Amino acid sequence: MTTATPRVGWLPAGPRNAITDVAGVTVGHDTIADGALQTGVTVVRPHAGDVYRDKVPAAATVINGFGKSCGLIQIEELGVMETPIALTNTFGVPAVADAQIRAAVEANPEIGRAWPTVNALVLECNDGYLNDIQAMAVTRAHYDRALAAADVVVPEGAVGAGRGMSAFGFKGGIGTASRCVALAGVPAVVGALVLSNFGRPHQLTVAGHPVGRHLAHDAEAARAPEKGSIILLLATDAALDARQLRRLSLRAGAGLARTGSVFGHGSGDIALAFSTAYTVPHDAKTPMPAVTCVHETLLDPLFEAAAEACEQAIVNALWRAKTVMGRGGHLRAAITDTITDWPTWRAAHAAP
Amino acid sequence: MTTATPRVGWLPAGPRNAITDVAGVTVGHDTIADGALQTGVTVVRPHAGDVYRDKVPAAATVINGFGKSCGLIQIEELGVMETPIALTNTFGVPAVADAQIRAAVEANPEIGRAWPTVNALVLECNDGYLNDIQAMAVTRAHYDRALAAADVVVPEGAVGAGRGMSAFGFKGGIGTASRCVALAGVPAVVGALVLSNFGRPHQLTVAGHPVGRHLAHDAEAARAPEKGSIILLLATDAALDARQLRRLSLRAGAGLARTGSVFGHGSGDIALAFSTAYTVPHDAKTPMPAVTCVHETLLDPLFEAAAEACEQAIVNALWRAKTVMGRGGHLRAAITDTITDWPTWRAAHAAP
Amino acid sequence: MTTATPRVGWLPAGPRNAITDVAGVTVGHDTIADGALQTGVTVVRPHAGDVYRDKVPAAATVINGFGKSCGLIQIEELGVMETPIALTNTFGVPAVADAQIRAAVEANPEIGRAWPTVNALVLECNDGYLNDIQAMAVTRAHYDRALAAADVVVPEGAVGAGRGMSAFGFKGGIGTASRCVALAGVPAVVGALVLSNFGRPHQLTVAGHPVGRHLAHDAEAARAPEKGSIILLLATDAALDARQLRRLSLRAGAGLARTGSVFGHGSGDIALAFSTAYTVPHDAKTPMPAVTCVHETLLDPLFEAAAEACEQAIVNALWRAKTVMGRGGHLRAAITDTITDWPTWRAAHAAP
Amino acid sequence: MTTATPRVGWLPAGPRNAITDVAGVTVGHDTIADGALQTGVTVVRPHAGDVYRDKVPAAATVINGFGKSCGLIQIEELGVMETPIALTNTFGVPAVADAQIRAAVEANPEIGRAWPTVNALVLECNDGYLNDIQAMAVTRAHYDRALAAADVVVPEGAVGAGRGMSAFGFKGGIGTASRCVALAGVPAVVGALVLSNFGRPHQLTVAGHPVGRHLAHDAEAARAPEKGSIILLLATDAALDARQLRRLSLRAGAGLARTGSVFGHGSGDIALAFSTAYTVPHDAKTPMPAVTCVHETLLDPLFEAAAEACEQAIVNALWRAKTVMGRGGHLRAAITDTITDWPTWRAAHAAP
Repeated sequence: MTTATPRVGWLPAGPRNAITDVAGVTVGHDTIADGALQTGVTVVRPHAGDVYRDKVPAAATVINGFGKSCGLIQIEELGVMETPIALTNTFGVPAVADAQIRAAVEANPEIGRAWPTVNALVLECNDGYLNDIQAMAVTRAHYDRALAAADVVVPEGAVGAGRGMSAFGFKGGIGTASRCVALAGVPAVVGALVLSNFGRPHQLTVAGHPVGRHLAHDAEAARAPEKGSIILLLATDAALDARQLRRLSLRAGAGLARTGSVFGHGSGDIALAFSTAYTVPHDAKTPMPAVTCVHETLLDPLFEAAAEACEQAIVNALWRAKTVMGRGGHLRAAITDTITDWPTWRAAHAAP
Repeated sequence: MTTATPRVGWLPAGPRNAITDVAGVTVGHDTIADGALQTGVTVVRPHAGDVYRDKVPAAATVINGFGKSCGLIQIEELGVMETPIALTNTFGVPAVADAQIRAAVEANPEIGRAWPTVNALVLECNDGYLNDIQAMAVTRAHYDRALAAADVVVPEGAVGAGRGMSAFGFKGGIGTASRCVALAGVPAVVGALVLSNFGRPHQLTVAGHPVGRHLAHDAEAARAPEKGSIILLLATDAALDARQLRRLSLRAGAGLARTGSVFGHGSGDIALAFSTAYTVPHDAKTPMPAVTCVHETLLDPLFEAAAEACEQAIVNALWRAKTVMGRGGHLRAAITDTITDWPTWRAAHAAP
Repeated sequence: MTTATPRVGWLPAGPRNAITDVAGVTVGHDTIADGALQTGVTVVRPHAGDVYRDKVPAAATVINGFGKSCGLIQIEELGVMETPIALTNTFGVPAVADAQIRAAVEANPEIGRAWPTVNALVLECNDGYLNDIQAMAVTRAHYDRALAAADVVVPEGAVGAGRGMSAFGFKGGIGTASRCVALAGVPAVVGALVLSNFGRPHQLTVAGHPVGRHLAHDAEAARAPEKGSIILLLATDAALDARQLRRLSLRAGAGLARTGSVFGHGSGDIALAFSTAYTVPHDAKTPMPAVTCVHETLLDPLFEAAAEACEQAIVNALWRAKTVMGRGGHLRAAITDTITDWPTWRAAHAAP
Repeated sequence: MTTATPRVGWLPAGPRNAITDVAGVTVGHDTIADGALQTGVTVVRPHAGDVYRDKVPAAATVINGFGKSCGLIQIEELGVMETPIALTNTFGVPAVADAQIRAAVEANPEIGRAWPTVNALVLECNDGYLNDIQAMAVTRAHYDRALAAADVVVPEGAVGAGRGMSAFGFKGGIGTASRCVALAGVPAVVGALVLSNFGRPHQLTVAGHPVGRHLAHDAEAARAPEKGSIILLLATDAALDARQLRRLSLRAGAGLARTGSVFGHGSGDIALAFSTAYTVPHDAKTPMPAVTCVHETLLDPLFEAAAEACEQAIVNALWRAKTVMGRGGHLRAAITDTITDWPTWRAAHAAP
């Protein structure tokens, strides 16, 4: 029996309530679930083409830089990404970066010869509680399969890179959501996808409700220390340049804060936003697009959508994740084992 | 009849629940309340001495840079502030910066001669709804009086720089709070003081409760557009270096987000943190302090305290502010006119 | 009898070898030269219109942040400037910022009322050796006159904000230069204007020649300590967005380094670049421009032009500055008093 | 017959004129030189101990972010590095990061279990002209051997990560240098090590002399396009905190500019500085060091030393590199084949 996922905010969601409500975006997972190995790879493709040839405007905010992601320096400088976005565990970053390089070279054999090299983009969290991260189980095959699996339907919870992740003492992982707004009458959508692996139990806040302060007395898991992180990806079909996308990416932090986070010292909290409204050609001989960016004063609805979609995606990751047992018998229980029905539970647990 | 201010978070407050719970810190106001002129100056003194000679470790985070503050560039480079912190309205920045320069030169006549110049530090919000900001009413005298008035007792609400400020369609202004933590057994305090002038009515969230979604249907003020900002000051007695203080200052944003903000486009959201644990001598011949910084892994309690103190200070600014009528008969009502008793109101307004 | 100014680099200069070779850009000075008062204001207008209504894409790099400029935070956030650029002495910043606010309000009376406030943009150096900076002699009248004087002809040396500035122990001040390049066959120009007030005598390097190592033994001024700074402004007619302009602005540092600077601790070294290729309307109802930015791989000629134009502008400031006597009989001699003919001097002073 | 390397600047070098003049620092190389494979790994060890347990204060400046280095985000956040610094080719980054993770886990088996993960630190340039970078020849064994080879004697030129690198159309690679200064009478040393792979031939400037403008007409290599980068490492025994080290690292750019660079669009120009004056314990139970940082006003000699040491290291890399033939018969000639004796050549080639 399923339990309804709590709804946060008031903006309308898109038809899938997923990052794939932004047209052209697809998501694929490949999951390793084998005893002490509980990990995987998730790939977000910004468009169906070759991202190296048709680069995607993008920008990131390092909310808290206790993280080992690769590829962000070049994105900050150049304002574009040139591979799909890959998510995995911390020690899987080298293998996935290697996979991205090899895939790019196979598609474009002049990379590293007549052409420049390629900027692998891999973001990560540490799933070492459930997953034997030292086994370094992730390989190129997992990346390739996740890429091949990319689809508009996005499985959530303990899948792909989210397989071994934990949040607030519960099972975390992949969550996605979307919010729809209008900019001076023109519709726009913001989609979020998170790899959620952060939060100490007492902090958990759901739709403003201090859940963690109640649960801290209920759950064994509540006493585990945090060694988490969160990756927050934002997509939009609004025409934003890299500077505006950086502004948008920061608003992921507002959604994150509302779930109880204070951007903890040990948490690699990184947000990345991209736009699907145009691409930038690799080849200087291809004409550059004539881009009509959104007027700055119209950004607020996108900012609200970004914060809300991220908050919702974090909640979704919790509510969609199934219980997982992993390394050394470690167990992360689904929050839905504790909160079997959100409206009932919430009514029963008034603010302290 | 007063109404109790809502309490946010769970960490204990200091004895004054004010930034002045950090030993040595004092705050002074000078208020202009004269018809169309509703503005003022607030000064935060980090210690009782000459800040130019004994510089204070400090760092800032520009959460959203739609702001006209001065002095932050040098703080980022050098990691110290060398004047008290001044708050005022946007168009008062030049006058107050001028006042700071003149005060520093009078105390140290070699400034700008044998010594370098002085870095004025003035942070601002736009009080143009209630205040005739074009009148540029703030002068050096207001700064000097605010400085002279500095005390451990901190009036809140519609005082000093907060006189003409608005928040969420209500009267905003000055709020302060503190939170006490222990770092590996060693007590530490984080104090916050905000100049609160941000927020659209529908966004207002108090202790997790979506107040604005109810009030948007109650209050005339709810339909006014936002042209706001917020300055968030943090003080701590923990020994942090400038890099750690920058980390601390960012956590003000977590508290801000919890009140409903998405760091709106038009809002100058700037956080600044300083430590009172040591000073840095101006004179290179004076020995530098031997500083034993807090171990990085012990910062989380400070981060929680910073977020919570800022959230509380924003709530305090709302609940302590009296109704003000200003320019052109514009009126900002105290939130306590609408929410006369928080527990009663909250119980009556369940989440939508 | 004049002495030819040394030529640096190999790119061709524009017809005026000035920032005004970028079409639409004009520069005005107002100079105070009265005994102990040796200072002034310089204004760079990016176009002839109202910069608040037609904002100009811009970005800055803080090479070394020992500086008291105002307005850069908002430029970094929003990627546009909305006033002309003003240069003055450090303690003149408040007066000139005040002047910019008043001028903007007079032109657009809804600023600070129905419209947001205005972001004053004032950059500065410390001329306290020659000028009685404590006298705070700069007022709104000087700003207004400098603005009114704006022209395509740019006086250099000890004029405007450059009146009291020193460089490498000699008289410094205002210098300007330009360089012309082609981007995939399309011509573009980069203009530079510097307010030069930095450099210890032994560091001076002219066109690669270690002039300072010779002059340190020749000139009395060589033993004076540095308390300097430099502001480096870049204009281009190439269509760059704010991210690209930030990249361009950093290259001012390459030109600066070639004159001997190591971006000294006490030097506020700030570069700001803007593009005249398009403007951004203040009014959200005005259509946004469709901007076709330069392809990133075509930027290198602009980068070379920026470095070279800045290096040349610094040299020009030295060679065009006349000897000035100021506060307390302090004297800064023109470099041309020492190096009366550059080719002759250079030939006579081989590398040590 | 050898040719003397040109000397730049005027500060005295340390006894080895190498980064290893900073006590405790060692450098090791492992070189692959096998037909189309011309690449390798270079490791800089900041001290002889376990860098994870005794972390090293560090900071970086991304001068131009067209680069694929990993590990910088965490260094910016935490101000320490926790592995030795590894240099390799762009596509070798994943393999070397993987090697660093495995080495750290072997030394500290709780990494990724009871302890957090480890932040691999790998910096890179693209050696694809001489090296078959697509072969991805670098493996963990090369990293391990480079680490084991670490010594105070530093081979320069076409060794280690420098094996396949090019600079200004000539053979580039590894260069090192040091400069000695006094800070208020206290001696300090700054050492630099560069992985030099940047520069178009016409730009080359040696000790201020525009060598490239002469050589552009002499050398076949002069017409090759740039696809380069440079990594600039700085070590000092002065007690600097992370903020001060960031300031120091930026001054590498001044040295870089003097060799002719304008921080070209396609060049990943990254500088990283560390101090050996103290370490930061991993274990929060170990007492933190009481650090007496250098007074800010005493930094200028360190800044001059940093710029000069980097400029010298770039020159050294050119003059120590032997001719290498690699992939597809591509050849990079030693500059010493063209400039067989620097004083003679310089005298013969006056400035154009």
